[in-house]
Amino acid sequence: MQKFVFGADIGGTTVKIGLFQADGELLKKWEIPTRTDSKGSKILPDIAASVADTMKQHAISANQVYGIGFGVPGPVDNRCNVNRCVNLGWGVFNLKERMNQLLPEIPHVMAGNDANVATLGELWNGGGRGYTSAVMITLGTGVGGGVVVQKRIIAGRNGGAGEIGHMFVEPAEIIPCSCGKCGCLEQYASARGIAHMAKQMLVKSNCKSMLDDIPDLNSKHICEAAAAGDPMAQRIMDRFGQYLGRAMSNISCTVDPDVFIIGGGMSKAGTIVIDAIDKYYRSSAFHVSRETPIVLAKLGNDAGIYGCAKMVMDN
Amino acid sequence: MQKFVFGADIGGTTVKIGLFQADGELLKKWEIPTRTDSKGSKILPDIAASVADTMKQHAISANQVYGIGFGVPGPVDNRCNVNRCVNLGWGVFNLKERMNQLLPEIPHVMAGNDANVATLGELWNGGGRGYTSAVMITLGTGVGGGVVVQKRIIAGRNGGAGEIGHMFVEPAEIIPCSCGKCGCLEQYASARGIAHMAKQMLVKSNCKSMLDDIPDLNSKHICEAAAAGDPMAQRIMDRFGQYLGRAMSNISCTVDPDVFIIGGGMSKAGTIVIDAIDKYYRSSAFHVSRETPIVLAKLGNDAGIYGCAKMVMDN
Repeated sequence: MQKFVFGADIGGTTVKIGLFQADGELLKKWEIPTRTDSKGSKILPDIAASVADTMKQHAISANQVYGIGFGVPGPVDNRCNVNRCVNLGWGVFNLKERMNQLLPEIPHVMAGNDANVATLGELWNGGGRGYTSAVMITLGTGVGGGVVVQKRIIAGRNGGAGEIGHMFVEPAEIIPCSCGKCGCLEQYASARGIAHMAKQMLVKSNCKSMLDDIPDLNSKHICEAAAAGDPMAQRIMDRFGQYLGRAMSNISCTVDPDVFIIGGGMSKAGTIVIDAIDKYYRSSAFHVSRETPIVLAKLGNDAGIYGCAKMVMDN
Repeated sequence: MQKFVFGADIGGTTVKIGLFQADGELLKKWEIPTRTDSKGSKILPDIAASVADTMKQHAISANQVYGIGFGVPGPVDNRCNVNRCVNLGWGVFNLKERMNQLLPEIPHVMAGNDANVATLGELWNGGGRGYTSAVMITLGTGVGGGVVVQKRIIAGRNGGAGEIGHMFVEPAEIIPCSCGKCGCLEQYASARGIAHMAKQMLVKSNCKSMLDDIPDLNSKHICEAAAAGDPMAQRIMDRFGQYLGRAMSNISCTVDPDVFIIGGGMSKAGTIVIDAIDKYYRSSAFHVSRETPIVLAKLGNDAGIYGCAKMVMDN
């Protein structure tokens, strides 16, 4: 009998859902809106209804479904206890228990933090394919991360594992990060952070730069100008690489992963980002980990649903 | 039938060996010299002979021995491949294969890096008792470390996990660490490192200190003077705590352990060391991990044999 798995990656705006064969092939993916009103109480019923609909459409019976995996934008422990998701309006509750009420015919439910689940997805079928452990770093509005060792997500006691963006990297920083601390990696290595750092560096600099007259300067402008040879943009990228590469060398001193996977919007700039990180990672890493590959993520927004499905298949 | 386990923690000078009941009780511990001549080729035969002797003395038959666990002062992967131990004269070889030749009647052999194995020991029966994940930091001549998650040692791709001492913490450092890099945690937070840092700070300072006239200043003097209220010694301890506490906050952003265990010679100073770390850990940790307990190791030099035995029992 053919078996299936669902993966549901819950974001602040949409829920991405994937229907997978048990052998890992993605058969269908779609999105539904994330209804965050009423304290997010509609989100899981909406997903349950969409899964039930899809099963009906494809004539899949409940005993053909191995389970459903969830990616959640907040801390979740390995017993599916959600510990607040501000973006969704969620408080503290057990996601598996709630889903078991909504879809009692599919009892096997797993949940993980979205960044951790995406790391598992990339390791399984993306940039980390062929490896068994990975640290993924997502350079988006913030800096997210996930740690997978021996194909298992490390969530951490408080769901704080993989919170790469909040590594302390700059004692001299006086502006607070969104988390309240000062000097977090996210303040220099996220898309927002690098733009902010660039503006500061441009104000202080006397050199002319392609970036001088750009209103609403963003990370894409910086990466493009650096790739085009603009010295000031290259200096900004170098500083970005210094913070991130050194932080990654410290991650290697802790878990020494097989591979680092760089994802998120900024990773679309490709080589210019990898090269900036590479330079500082190689020079600050402990010698045994100096050659650890640093690769680009491959699955884009699908990493989450792949990881959700894999989490269910492996457990 | 009563079952037994041996643990052998190989150091540069002596091998500590423990005989455990399968329920975890330590029945007997002893030491034999580590003979590092002849490229360390006598070490494993010496251990095998000592184990065989002990079995004879206590009338333990081979089928009563569940296995032998080894702690090795160098990188070992989870298939017992040793990748050079400079202190022992060892090159690259498989420790399990070698032991299976020496003691074919005890086929179950496990090996781990000594710091990782000691962490497992402390988690099982020492300072980390009751927890399932821990990062142990050993403040000795250098700074060692071990990472255990869900009761499993994380060794890392290249055996580099838990190399806490080589985290990059000081970009301004110009003196190289023993590893060749500059600015490693070990240069400020080890017994040797804090003494070196103290000497530099004393030279630059105009304040009088109890530490001024001490020849061969060491970490014990510094801890004692700080505990006695010497402001300069307290400033040195504060800087030690700043480097270590911040590094630990970055470890929490990676694996978010249940507990940090502080061991090694310097940990004997107790509260003065924990307080210095605590101050900076709590202020730089990401909020979810801010309350992670920081405790002292309890097993001293026995942590290794406990961990060796536990590794065998769990596998």
